Amino acid sequence: MMEANKLQQKKNAPIGVFDSGVGGLTVFREIMRQIPNEKMIYFGDTARVPYGSKSKNTITRFARQIVRFLRTHDVKTIVVACNTASAYALESLQAEFDIPIIGVVEPGAKVAAETTRNGNIGVIATEGTIGSRIYNSYINQMNPEATIYGKACPLFVPLVEEGWLKDPVTREVASRYLAELKDKDIDTLILGCTHYPLLRSTIQEVVGDRVTLVNPAYETAVTLKNLLSGMDLLNTEVPTQGEQQHKFFVSDKAERFLEFANSIIEHGIPNPQTIQIEDY
Amino acid sequence: MMEANKLQQKKNAPIGVFDSGVGGLTVFREIMRQIPNEKMIYFGDTARVPYGSKSKNTITRFARQIVRFLRTHDVKTIVVACNTASAYALESLQAEFDIPIIGVVEPGAKVAAETTRNGNIGVIATEGTIGSRIYNSYINQMNPEATIYGKACPLFVPLVEEGWLKDPVTREVASRYLAELKDKDIDTLILGCTHYPLLRSTIQEVVGDRVTLVNPAYETAVTLKNLLSGMDLLNTEVPTQGEQQHKFFVSDKAERFLEFANSIIEHGIPNPQTIQIEDY
Repeated sequence: MMEANKLQQKKNAPIGVFDSGVGGLTVFREIMRQIPNEKMIYFGDTARVPYGSKSKNTITRFARQIVRFLRTHDVKTIVVACNTASAYALESLQAEFDIPIIGVVEPGAKVAAETTRNGNIGVIATEGTIGSRIYNSYINQMNPEATIYGKACPLFVPLVEEGWLKDPVTREVASRYLAELKDKDIDTLILGCTHYPLLRSTIQEVVGDRVTLVNPAYETAVTLKNLLSGMDLLNTEVPTQGEQQHKFFVSDKAERFLEFANSIIEHGIPNPQTIQIEDY
Repeated sequence: MMEANKLQQKKNAPIGVFDSGVGGLTVFREIMRQIPNEKMIYFGDTARVPYGSKSKNTITRFARQIVRFLRTHDVKTIVVACNTASAYALESLQAEFDIPIIGVVEPGAKVAAETTRNGNIGVIATEGTIGSRIYNSYINQMNPEATIYGKACPLFVPLVEEGWLKDPVTREVASRYLAELKDKDIDTLILGCTHYPLLRSTIQEVVGDRVTLVNPAYETAVTLKNLLSGMDLLNTEVPTQGEQQHKFFVSDKAERFLEFANSIIEHGIPNPQTIQIEDY
């Protein structure tokens, strides 16, 4: 049994969260809401963003470096807050490192499998995530009757980064991407890329109110909470006022990251620090 | 004086050409047209594409690795076939390596400075290139009276990569990006990113026939030809039939690169080889 002191120290350790860039901040935000005592170390790979169109080998190599970096901060667990990295690298990371690591795909798949009534589930995500068919495997493990229709939406990330969240151009692009899913009579649609929740209202408008949108961020935070609770590692200490609860790191310039983060995180975030990720 | 044998060998050496990804192929194609005897080694940094939104430090580090890689192929000269890398890294590369290196910015600026009649020149490019104001400096060195209006067009590259070259969405995005340049009464518009020539007809339609579009690729090939000719290094040997005249390398998966290359290069290209660029 761990001595009380050491256990307290371990409970108090931060959670590592990473993404190719800013998208994972939607997961960060959800964790912050659900388990507000937790400290986090967030890393955004802004030098090599985006991940969605790159290969499994490359993404796994990148993710390995990031996990090594996060471990230098003595994190107690790691959340891969990026669908493409979860799809391609999670299994290798879990096999390679002796620390609990969770992704965003399984939690999202679980909700979708439970939500659908007619068994027709749509998944929109990057080329990499769709190509991996990982949502299909997870969903069919839980609900073998479900039929999954995947669609890569490569322009959604640049449209979000441009800030055109509720824009006629974005609506037109969404209509085009989502037409074939609508034809399949889906009743559930997974937002399988961490950027997409920012387009939620446009996507909802295009697919109509009868389709339930699933945002894996929420369920990922639930999974994380259960995991930490199961290991008796939930942080019970309320953060002291003025303490810097979360730290942010990026692999390239911090200004745009900061600007974006401050637009989606209430009260904003402290200045991110730039590190050279290839060195890890 | 170099002995004849050795000189012939040097003339016969390949030219290194690089870009963040596929865009530089528009420059490659132009070099192939103008000096068809030359061999080329093309590198596309598909693991870290795009460059346009990243910092000077990061792009310079990437470019340095690529030049080191190209030198392992004994290239006689290097063309930075990417506007962002030319804007940020060319000067450092030229200072650091003892091999002639040219970029795409100066040649494009030269044509624009000579072309304009009313002195109002527009430049469309990535965030990085526009932010560097490098077209402004080059143009004003040659034509101090000219006024330069820059506009970053971050969605153009993803739209080209999606293949929506002549599409209502692309036309709408272009109208929005180009509106402020049209208001400035420009008569010349530099396509300051190697992807943009692929949107030429849409851009021309939006700005109207009275605006001359400048594609730096053409003038870059002219500059390269003059440089090689001045050093007596133009390849005078006609490539033998069946010889693999050009070689292609990428830092990530080759399929999409190949597909894109084959859509813009007549007769297609051989399979690119994937290398790990961080090792250089």
